Amino acid sequence: MPMLFTDDEVAARLDATTSVAAMRAAIVDAYEGRLVAPPRTAAPLTGGRLVMTAGQLTDRWYGYRSYDTFGHRQGEQLVVLHDAATGRVRAMAVGEEIGSRRTGAIGGVATAALAREESRTIGVIGAGGQAWTQLWAAAAVRPLREVTVFSRTPASREAFAARVRAELGLRARAVDTAAAAVAGRDIVVLATTSRTPVISATDLAPGTHVNAVGFKQHGRSEFGLDLVDRAHVLATDSPVQAVAYDPPMIVVGTTAEPRLRHLGAILAGALPGRTTADEITLFCSVGLAGTEAYLLDRLASSVAVPV
Amino acid sequence: MPMLFTDDEVAARLDATTSVAAMRAAIVDAYEGRLVAPPRTAAPLTGGRLVMTAGQLTDRWYGYRSYDTFGHRQGEQLVVLHDAATGRVRAMAVGEEIGSRRTGAIGGVATAALAREESRTIGVIGAGGQAWTQLWAAAAVRPLREVTVFSRTPASREAFAARVRAELGLRARAVDTAAAAVAGRDIVVLATTSRTPVISATDLAPGTHVNAVGFKQHGRSEFGLDLVDRAHVLATDSPVQAVAYDPPMIVVGTTAEPRLRHLGAILAGALPGRTTADEITLFCSVGLAGTEAYLLDRLASSVAVPV
Repeated sequence: MPMLFTDDEVAARLDATTSVAAMRAAIVDAYEGRLVAPPRTAAPLTGGRLVMTAGQLTDRWYGYRSYDTFGHRQGEQLVVLHDAATGRVRAMAVGEEIGSRRTGAIGGVATAALAREESRTIGVIGAGGQAWTQLWAAAAVRPLREVTVFSRTPASREAFAARVRAELGLRARAVDTAAAAVAGRDIVVLATTSRTPVISATDLAPGTHVNAVGFKQHGRSEFGLDLVDRAHVLATDSPVQAVAYDPPMIVVGTTAEPRLRHLGAILAGALPGRTTADEITLFCSVGLAGTEAYLLDRLASSVAVPV
Repeated sequence: MPMLFTDDEVAARLDATTSVAAMRAAIVDAYEGRLVAPPRTAAPLTGGRLVMTAGQLTDRWYGYRSYDTFGHRQGEQLVVLHDAATGRVRAMAVGEEIGSRRTGAIGGVATAALAREESRTIGVIGAGGQAWTQLWAAAAVRPLREVTVFSRTPASREAFAARVRAELGLRARAVDTAAAAVAGRDIVVLATTSRTPVISATDLAPGTHVNAVGFKQHGRSEFGLDLVDRAHVLATDSPVQAVAYDPPMIVVGTTAEPRLRHLGAILAGALPGRTTADEITLFCSVGLAGTEAYLLDRLASSVAVPV
């Protein structure tokens, strides 16, 4: 009988430090060829698609995440982990927590690698689940002191700030504009559903690190090429997926494309990351495939007996 | 928390009559457009592929089966069922039983539709799991009296015959040749892994119904075009999948292709099935996609409380 984890169990067992460490290992494994992560595949159904993102850590496990595009508010994803030696199903997780924690933790890896060591302030655009897990992970890699947050709905940003105070114990303020949320911040998170830029590059202070989690494709992107041009370091968790996006990532096909670095190459020391305190660094998160199964493997391995 | 079924639970709860009735409904639903069943999709990994076959019964549920091609002896498949209204995972089944029972039951549907009413004898080529579930389902749709079985390994065919006697309570004989197994039989099952024909069309008595479960593609097929030519009725559970096979089904591209009928059309009365007692009928099973989720829906609906 495989282990089956619900969202409550994932939330109770998978902390930010563990998650960021696992995603750091995953990104390096992907860069060095041990984590096989082909582009997603999908089956077309009426009204939506059923999508599978697969991954394989050579000789250890293989697995996948499945999700759909029907847009159900309570729709559940599934993450499945097979043992590579036997093919048996070792663990499954039903719900959203593995997926959202891994996206947050990938952002945490980028922040740990690219934000200035002395970063203490963070500005967040967006007040949804993605914004939350980005902050959750960032707080695990830098000793944050203050959070500013903007989203279009005042009640949402106020609730987000209140949650930051309650759950992370950090000073937090909701502000009236996106520009105010990011002004002078050491770290900025863009985690919106916007199809047009929510900030200008000139809104940012020198030395800011930016994690961009929302749309970042040609024709729909929460940031513009002005930010790409201003960024000294451009990185992503999967250049292959960046190109495979349809339409492709905003950087692809521009003069900036050759500057887009695999975060794994930076982590492995093959390419430089930030070199001065004044540089703007931009992490374009695409959600490296196979990382949900990677996180489920860590979770399952941490549990002595099936739950 | 979704329902989770193991092989033992599926075996205990899913009998042949229920399974055949469900697969009959599924094939008619597919023919009439209510069951959406796109061709399978796969993610390439090192050493094998992870495959997903999806299905959707409009406004009721959607789901999939996942399996892989690594060839593990104890490898487990997964069948997942989502509620169409909420997107939540309603049930999952881990293992082989749903998959093998649905393939058997699809053969049972074809046998019920195409074999003569007075069929009492069955000849089986192959002694594996697929051969077993074909017989299991055939016995639910015709009052069988005698089973003959051939496979290349004497111990395997003897064990199969013994299992038939013990579990189905039928007279059963292992025989030395494939021709002897099918001679004068009312129903014939081909369920081998052979890439070349295991019988000749002339081995069959007039009026025989044949369920072909193994390879049936150009270049690798357990039966030849002589059987296709002799068959008065050619049917399959999915003409779309027959064409999508790579290489395509042996019938595709031949003069026989226009004669290949959707079994659902026969069940719905849109096309004739057998019209005389002397006709040979041939069912080319491809394993209609979405049918595992269909069967899991029936199973989940039959269970009052989560197991």
